[in-house]
Amino acid sequence: MNRQVRLAARPVGLPKRSDWQFTSEPVPEPGEGEVLVKVRYLSLDPAMRGWMNEGKSYIPPVGIGEVMRAGGIGQVIASRHPDFAEGDSVSGRLNVQDYACVPGAQLSKVDPAAAPLPVYLSALGMPGMTAYFGLLDIGKPQPGETVVVSGAAGAVGTVVGQIAKLKGCRVVGIAGGAGKCRYLVEEMGFDAAVDYKAEDVRAALRRECPKGIDVFFDNVGGDTLEAALANLARHARIVICGAISQYNNTTPAPGPKNYMALLVNRARMEGMVVFDYADRYAEAVRDLSAWMAEGKLKSREHIVCGLDGFPEALLKLFTGENFGKLVLKVADA
Amino acid sequence: MNRQVRLAARPVGLPKRSDWQFTSEPVPEPGEGEVLVKVRYLSLDPAMRGWMNEGKSYIPPVGIGEVMRAGGIGQVIASRHPDFAEGDSVSGRLNVQDYACVPGAQLSKVDPAAAPLPVYLSALGMPGMTAYFGLLDIGKPQPGETVVVSGAAGAVGTVVGQIAKLKGCRVVGIAGGAGKCRYLVEEMGFDAAVDYKAEDVRAALRRECPKGIDVFFDNVGGDTLEAALANLARHARIVICGAISQYNNTTPAPGPKNYMALLVNRARMEGMVVFDYADRYAEAVRDLSAWMAEGKLKSREHIVCGLDGFPEALLKLFTGENFGKLVLKVADA
Repeated sequence: MNRQVRLAARPVGLPKRSDWQFTSEPVPEPGEGEVLVKVRYLSLDPAMRGWMNEGKSYIPPVGIGEVMRAGGIGQVIASRHPDFAEGDSVSGRLNVQDYACVPGAQLSKVDPAAAPLPVYLSALGMPGMTAYFGLLDIGKPQPGETVVVSGAAGAVGTVVGQIAKLKGCRVVGIAGGAGKCRYLVEEMGFDAAVDYKAEDVRAALRRECPKGIDVFFDNVGGDTLEAALANLARHARIVICGAISQYNNTTPAPGPKNYMALLVNRARMEGMVVFDYADRYAEAVRDLSAWMAEGKLKSREHIVCGLDGFPEALLKLFTGENFGKLVLKVADA
Repeated sequence: MNRQVRLAARPVGLPKRSDWQFTSEPVPEPGEGEVLVKVRYLSLDPAMRGWMNEGKSYIPPVGIGEVMRAGGIGQVIASRHPDFAEGDSVSGRLNVQDYACVPGAQLSKVDPAAAPLPVYLSALGMPGMTAYFGLLDIGKPQPGETVVVSGAAGAVGTVVGQIAKLKGCRVVGIAGGAGKCRYLVEEMGFDAAVDYKAEDVRAALRRECPKGIDVFFDNVGGDTLEAALANLARHARIVICGAISQYNNTTPAPGPKNYMALLVNRARMEGMVVFDYADRYAEAVRDLSAWMAEGKLKSREHIVCGLDGFPEALLKLFTGENFGKLVLKVADA
């Protein structure tokens, strides 16, 4: 049988267990050109919260009654597509279930010998792609510049900070808690970390970025974005990647009231959606893999076990409990 | 005697007459390298309101007791600089007074035969420079795209709209009142105009921009910016030139609460300050003059007379009374 987690209702605020429906159906048979995949790991991402809402966004919402959308890694157990054979490890939109029947054209092979499978959901997966293109293509950091990243201990943030260091920047991370901040500086090589739970972020950024912020990579929004706007350098670039502080709001939060800092500093704020870079993922994977092989880039995953625990696991993203990329382990090999 | 209008107090909200001090002192003698200019026209600009506030901005504030800063046009009545002779018409930072003693290096000659003098404060002055570089360098409109400008009947807005038409764009202006809207469409060649006093701007932009807004040139901020954010096309560019709706706020207004439209639409919002383009003004003047000579660009000035009326004249910018570039006439030739 194929256990599935479906969206039962559009959540108000934080998703509750009752917003989900647990169903079970026979494992499907792959049709012509399709591949049957046993799901092993699922990616849990802040963006999922947005997909649960009605309304226009960069991707259609998940429909009520549909299996929840999720990227994942799994193993091919039956293939009717010439590029895939039983036993292959693959990456793709597998959704929150035990088995996925997917057109082969929508899957990519991953090499379990080159990196542990969860890394293909982390530094070598969407978070890595997001960090790579968002920082390099939109942020365009130059050697000697100051790069600040919010949600710094998360899947995207840790990669952003490490790439910025590789590019010769001063890197400051914003994260919640002394443990995460220590981790960023001691293990991830950040120059400094600001604990938003313990200090005033605006003042801390002023202290840690004496020449102002040249690139701000924002995963958080809200007060954090305002604190960064208040500390921009001339010609700063703000990469709008996400706004996790806002995703569970039930009423629209106020926008950044000091956005005119963009004028004063001749600065730019630009949004990015990783899917736009799909035809360049190989370029990012090549660079990121090389940096990992050279020991210059670390990937850290926070693995939670069991499909049944999906609703609670997802919430860790919003309470800030995860430390590195949050991954749901669905099955052993 | 030289009558001068000085900043007496930092205004709270709209500047009152008591925020100004009227003084009189002997007409100064030009020192070595200086030029004595009889002020004829002064530029009244929304940005002046910002210069009256304490605090960091793109230019230092006017100090209490100082003569109010203003750009203007005047006539040389005595010169100790080799580039200027008595009778020359010049443009520069003349400030709110009858006579200005200015280093020659800070003045530019203007040609009264080529255009009426007030035009050098309008389409051929800072508003024209702002429109030209803000639209073309930051907004980068492409033929067939939709360009929306707020404060469209103002000095910058009319030039933005006309340049956008010259570049083959569909142009929609946002202005207050049926008269201004008619003027934009009938006299300035805009494709459509939205009267923010008479209709819901968000819905009107949806109607007038069926393919979304590719370039939004914002002089207004506040609700107008939100309405534009709600109607962006993919890869839109927002030029932050000003926020006249906010300049007299006594408490910080909320920011644009739908700024995440930048992410959904992979759009960019960027601030500009015209002074950064000083070394390229000649390029803009060349193009703008040529367009005016060909009858493709019109400049409209709203002229108010008398130095004594400066405090009240300035307020017209914020009540929306001016129609075209607001200019204070200080003296006849």
